[in-house]
Amino acid sequence: MILTVTLNAALDITYRVRALRPQTGHRVSEVVERPGGKGINVARVLAALGHRVTVTGFAGGATGRTVRDLLANGPGAVADALIPVAGSTRRTVSVVDPAAEDATLFNEPGPTVSPAEWDTFRDAYRDLLPSARAVALCGSLPPGVPVGAYALLVREARAAGVTVLLDTSGEPLRRGVAARPDLLKPNAEELAELTGSHDPLQAARDARRRGARTVVASLGAEGLLAVGPEGHWRAAPPRPLRGNPAGAGDSAVAGLLSALAENLPWPERLARAAALSAATVLSPVAGEFDRARYEELLGRVRVAEAAPTA
Amino acid sequence: MILTVTLNAALDITYRVRALRPQTGHRVSEVVERPGGKGINVARVLAALGHRVTVTGFAGGATGRTVRDLLANGPGAVADALIPVAGSTRRTVSVVDPAAEDATLFNEPGPTVSPAEWDTFRDAYRDLLPSARAVALCGSLPPGVPVGAYALLVREARAAGVTVLLDTSGEPLRRGVAARPDLLKPNAEELAELTGSHDPLQAARDARRRGARTVVASLGAEGLLAVGPEGHWRAAPPRPLRGNPAGAGDSAVAGLLSALAENLPWPERLARAAALSAATVLSPVAGEFDRARYEELLGRVRVAEAAPTA
Repeated sequence: MILTVTLNAALDITYRVRALRPQTGHRVSEVVERPGGKGINVARVLAALGHRVTVTGFAGGATGRTVRDLLANGPGAVADALIPVAGSTRRTVSVVDPAAEDATLFNEPGPTVSPAEWDTFRDAYRDLLPSARAVALCGSLPPGVPVGAYALLVREARAAGVTVLLDTSGEPLRRGVAARPDLLKPNAEELAELTGSHDPLQAARDARRRGARTVVASLGAEGLLAVGPEGHWRAAPPRPLRGNPAGAGDSAVAGLLSALAENLPWPERLARAAALSAATVLSPVAGEFDRARYEELLGRVRVAEAAPTA
Repeated sequence: MILTVTLNAALDITYRVRALRPQTGHRVSEVVERPGGKGINVARVLAALGHRVTVTGFAGGATGRTVRDLLANGPGAVADALIPVAGSTRRTVSVVDPAAEDATLFNEPGPTVSPAEWDTFRDAYRDLLPSARAVALCGSLPPGVPVGAYALLVREARAAGVTVLLDTSGEPLRRGVAARPDLLKPNAEELAELTGSHDPLQAARDARRRGARTVVASLGAEGLLAVGPEGHWRAAPPRPLRGNPAGAGDSAVAGLLSALAENLPWPERLARAAALSAATVLSPVAGEFDRARYEELLGRVRVAEAAPTA
C-alpha cells in the first residue's frame, strides 16, 4: 500500500453564497463537507486511481469524527490509521461566490498535539512503514508537533527502505529536506522561500544540494519541473487552464506516487502528475479531479527534457 | 421549570481574524463554539439567572452532538430534551474583525425534518407541557416542519394551561399569532412585517387584534414597548448603548419569562427584560450577558406608562 501522513487533518467545508458582502448576514445555499488536509487529499486521489492507500496523522473531537466518517463512507477505499487526539481537528471554511474569481478561505489553527500523542503517532508510523511501498508526508504541522517532525519521519522511512516524498513549507521543509527525502514536491513559492532563488531550475538544483534526491516543482499554469539524477524534465498540459487550483498540487503528488508504485519511467510519472493536476483545476468541485478530463489530458501532456544548464 | 423550544438549533461558531478581505485566505486566531438558536440562548440566560429550564427541539449529526455536549458541560444547568434527527444541526459562522463595526455572518439552512421526526417532537412536547410553568417558542423553522407549527404548539400550550410566548418571524409568526399566544415578542422589523405599520404602538395594538394577549416589542436602542390588557409601558436603559446586539432579543425573552415565573408585576418584568437585553449588548462575548452590568442597570432602567392613544 501507499501511506500518506496528514499531521494537521481538516474538515473542509464549502459554503455557496449569492454574493459575499463583509459585515452582513449570508444565507448559505449549499454546504459541502470533505475530509481534508494535503495527505488525505492525496490518499483520496490514489484510492480513486485504484491504489491501496492508508492515511495516518491525527484526528480528534467532533470534527475529527466527521472526517473519519466521511473517509469510511467516501468513494474509494482509504484505510484509516489516524491517531486520536484530545483536541479537535481544525475546520477550513471556503466561501464560494459565483461572481468572484477566488474563494474566501478561513483556516482554523488545529489542535495542540501533546508529547504523548506525538509518541503514539511515531510508534504507529514505525509499525505502518514495513507494509508501505511509498510514504507521502504532507502539509503543515499542528501546534505541539516539533518543527523537526518531518526530518525525523523522513529518516525513519529511509531507514525502513521506503521511498519518501515530502510536501510542506517553511521551517519544517527546510529541516525535512536536510534529512534527504527521495522526492520533494514544492510549489514555486515554497521553492523560492527554501532557496532564495526565483529561477525554478536553479532553485530545484539548490534544493537537491540541500538533500532532496529528486525535486518535482509544481509551477501553476507552467506545469511541472522535475530535476533529479535520472534527468531534467518539464511537463505541461497542452494549453493553459482556467479553474480552481485548490488541491492541484495534491493531485500531482498522487500522480507521482501512483506511477512510482507501478514502476513507470520518469516521463510517464510526470505526465500522470500533470494530467491529474490539470483535471483537478478543471473539476467543478474543489479538490476533486474530473476523470474524463484526466484520461483525455493524459495522452496530451507534453513532457520535454529541460535544459541541464548551469 | 420553564420550557424553551428551538426547532432550528445551531452550533454558533465565532472566528476572530485580523482583517476580512474577500477572495483571500485568513488564519483564524481564535475559535469559539456555543450552542445556539434563539430558544437555546433564552434557556442559557434563564439558567444563569438560577431558573430550572428544559430545552427541546431538534438536534442531529456531529454538529448536533457538539451542541448537546456544550449544553451538558456549559455553565448553568439546562436540561436537554432535544429530539434526535437524521439530518445535521446547522452551523452559523460569525467572522469578527476588530477593525469592523459588525460581524460577517454565514447561516447554514438546517436539516430537513421528516414527518415522523416532527410527530416524535410533538409527542415529547405534549409530555413536557404539564411540568412547565411557561413555554417559549423561538426562532425559524427548519425545512420539513409545517409552516403552521407554532400555531399548533401555541394551541397545545393553551390547552394545557401553560403560559406561552412566541418569538418568530414571517409566515410562522402570522399563523402563530392567530392561535392566541399569551405573549408575542417581535422586534420592530417583525412587527412591521406582520402588521404593515411602522408605528410600534399602533402595530402592537394591531398584533393584539390578530390574537396576541400581550405584545412586548424590542425596539433596539429605544428599549421595549409592552401593550396588553394590564396596561401600556415603555422600558429603556438610562442611555443609548453601543455594542453587539446579537442575542439581545433572546435575553429580553429570558427576562420576561424569569419575572413571570416569579409573579412580578409588569413594570418589573419589563425592567428585568430591558436590563438583561442591555447587558447582552454590552457584553464582549456575543449572546452572553454581563452580570455586573445587568445588576447595575436593573435599578436604572426607566419604565414609564405609554400613552394609550388611538
